[in-house]
Amino acid sequence: MTRSISILGATGSVGASTLDLIRRNRADWRVVALTANGNVAELAALAREFAVEVAVVADEKRLGDLREALAGTGIVAAAGRDALCEAASRPVDMTVAAIVGCAGLGPVMAAIEQGGTIALANKEALVSAGDVMTAAVARHGATLLPVDSEHNAIFQCLAGSRIGDVRWITLTASGGPLRLVEDLSAVTPEQAIAHPNWDMGAKISVDSATMFNKGLELIEAHHLFPVGLDRIRIVVHPQSVIHSMVEYRDGSTLAQLGPSDMRVPIASCLAWPQRMDTPCAPLDLAAIGELTFFAPDEVRFPATRLAREAAEAGGAAPAVLNAANEVAVAAFLARKIPFSRIAVLVERVLDDRSFSSAPGSLEEVLGVDAEARMRATELLELA
Amino acid sequence: MTRSISILGATGSVGASTLDLIRRNRADWRVVALTANGNVAELAALAREFAVEVAVVADEKRLGDLREALAGTGIVAAAGRDALCEAASRPVDMTVAAIVGCAGLGPVMAAIEQGGTIALANKEALVSAGDVMTAAVARHGATLLPVDSEHNAIFQCLAGSRIGDVRWITLTASGGPLRLVEDLSAVTPEQAIAHPNWDMGAKISVDSATMFNKGLELIEAHHLFPVGLDRIRIVVHPQSVIHSMVEYRDGSTLAQLGPSDMRVPIASCLAWPQRMDTPCAPLDLAAIGELTFFAPDEVRFPATRLAREAAEAGGAAPAVLNAANEVAVAAFLARKIPFSRIAVLVERVLDDRSFSSAPGSLEEVLGVDAEARMRATELLELA
Repeated sequence: MTRSISILGATGSVGASTLDLIRRNRADWRVVALTANGNVAELAALAREFAVEVAVVADEKRLGDLREALAGTGIVAAAGRDALCEAASRPVDMTVAAIVGCAGLGPVMAAIEQGGTIALANKEALVSAGDVMTAAVARHGATLLPVDSEHNAIFQCLAGSRIGDVRWITLTASGGPLRLVEDLSAVTPEQAIAHPNWDMGAKISVDSATMFNKGLELIEAHHLFPVGLDRIRIVVHPQSVIHSMVEYRDGSTLAQLGPSDMRVPIASCLAWPQRMDTPCAPLDLAAIGELTFFAPDEVRFPATRLAREAAEAGGAAPAVLNAANEVAVAAFLARKIPFSRIAVLVERVLDDRSFSSAPGSLEEVLGVDAEARMRATELLELA
Repeated sequence: MTRSISILGATGSVGASTLDLIRRNRADWRVVALTANGNVAELAALAREFAVEVAVVADEKRLGDLREALAGTGIVAAAGRDALCEAASRPVDMTVAAIVGCAGLGPVMAAIEQGGTIALANKEALVSAGDVMTAAVARHGATLLPVDSEHNAIFQCLAGSRIGDVRWITLTASGGPLRLVEDLSAVTPEQAIAHPNWDMGAKISVDSATMFNKGLELIEAHHLFPVGLDRIRIVVHPQSVIHSMVEYRDGSTLAQLGPSDMRVPIASCLAWPQRMDTPCAPLDLAAIGELTFFAPDEVRFPATRLAREAAEAGGAAPAVLNAANEVAVAAFLARKIPFSRIAVLVERVLDDRSFSSAPGSLEEVLGVDAEARMRATELLELA
């Protein structure tokens, strides 16, 4: 049976992994919409290869190029924010939501509103707009499947179990490249982006080094799996072989293990509740030899504490945390602030009392996001 | 809702763990039948405590004592093989089948024939009589839930998945107390029964030391989870924290972890498909620190190879392997043969061509068992 799919963020790494899997099972899928931020050449090539209905580039200045690249194909070329949302609103069985940043919020909401299954890879949808998104999911009868390896692991370990039977959710964290670095004040951007297990972009690699990545995942987990923040914990596991765990009330812990290959969680979403083949190598624990585990050090890496506090505070706080962190990471990557000031800056912005009201719509979330960025930038300039 | 339960082998360790859990949830259960091998005093005390319908002692000579101990209670006292089967055949929601050895086969079959759910802890039911038992389960619409920690782990990791989606089943093995002992020929019974992680009887501890325990589990797994022997493998994991694993075709591996406490798998059977509380401590991987993994050494420990060959041969071979191993272990514990001759003796008995036909009934299984024991004893005396 052929299923329809749209991929929002088709030229990024999650998009590429998804299309790799679809290519291997071409007859099972009909690709409806593909979107990209600005890479028109690749978007057009993919749109032709998969004979899509519509291709959208976010950058409106690239519309002419996209039209030209798709001339004579019959594929609709479009550009801009509204076009992204229109593409996302076309009814499909499955949407892979992999646009990075707050730019993804509108398209994710459009996908939720059409009521299908959304394989969610956009962090901001649950970190900044968690309450708004989960309310929309319930209202429209949509299904959220988490793509992120940790949340996908938890989803697999739950396998439909009652959330009331869960005693603990344990997110594993690699601990990042700086876990064993003694002097964090002297860390360079080059050191911070050298992630040991995953090949990722600079921003998310710095988030892994600060542990803000794990903090954001904690907030996401809290929205996806409503067990209470006091039942979600983090354990440092440098090999990243166990992607996360669920402990049940009887003392059984289920863990999901696998290679550091996004095709595994993406495949589990695409085939859910069945399974599909991937070319990923089987797990050979005897070859890996050992898995190690440590308690997180929230004194040296305060990000997970800040995220937990933001999640407990609720309302605008998680969106503020996320926005302030983005500004701080950009400043660190531009060598404007030292590594250890990232968390300090985020905590200062969070402490600002003006962000107390809870955003009730996407527009309000985007307002909080913009305001928090401004406040973070101001604090940077004051220093 | 009160559920009815019978416990066959109530005074052994699985029986005691089961009754501990029932005691903690007394209102949820009505205990119908309890049986014991010969411990009349404990059986009678439990029968009174749980106000059962019938208590059966296997040893017929103890019937008078049991009657006396239950005088005036209205509880039926019975003894002998037929009484065990009669008790097991009383309709209940759940039977915990924890009689050790081939003496458990008849009662397990009686429990299967009444069509309820059987939490199976008797190894011989699947090792020696696997084909006969699984055919009876299908015929009578019974449900088998594995109690053994490894098979229970696999059952939890499968969580209703299609067996066709499974790429590998991996049984973990502690490797036993002799994994790092250089000279196996000089091993004493005392060394062999010092199991590192579980507190078990002498026979099963020696089986852990020889790895025959894992070999028997391989045969059981083959009956419980029909994926083909070439897809069931063993990895040595000395900490016994991961109890076993299932790898799916997409590269996801699900593992079940937990304390070395039989109440965890028993609780998962009692509450299945829900969960129930146990007093078992939460898993603290940071405190455990590391989990290690090694490929099994089938040259030093040939038991898993022999078991795999017996499972591949099918028919009478697994029953022969099990019976010959019991005779060999008894001879080792009596200091009649050295440790390293256990596997040699089993292989000799297996090589005997006279055991080629497949037993088609419990009686034929018991015949093969008796014959293999005789042949093993003869070979012992010849040496």
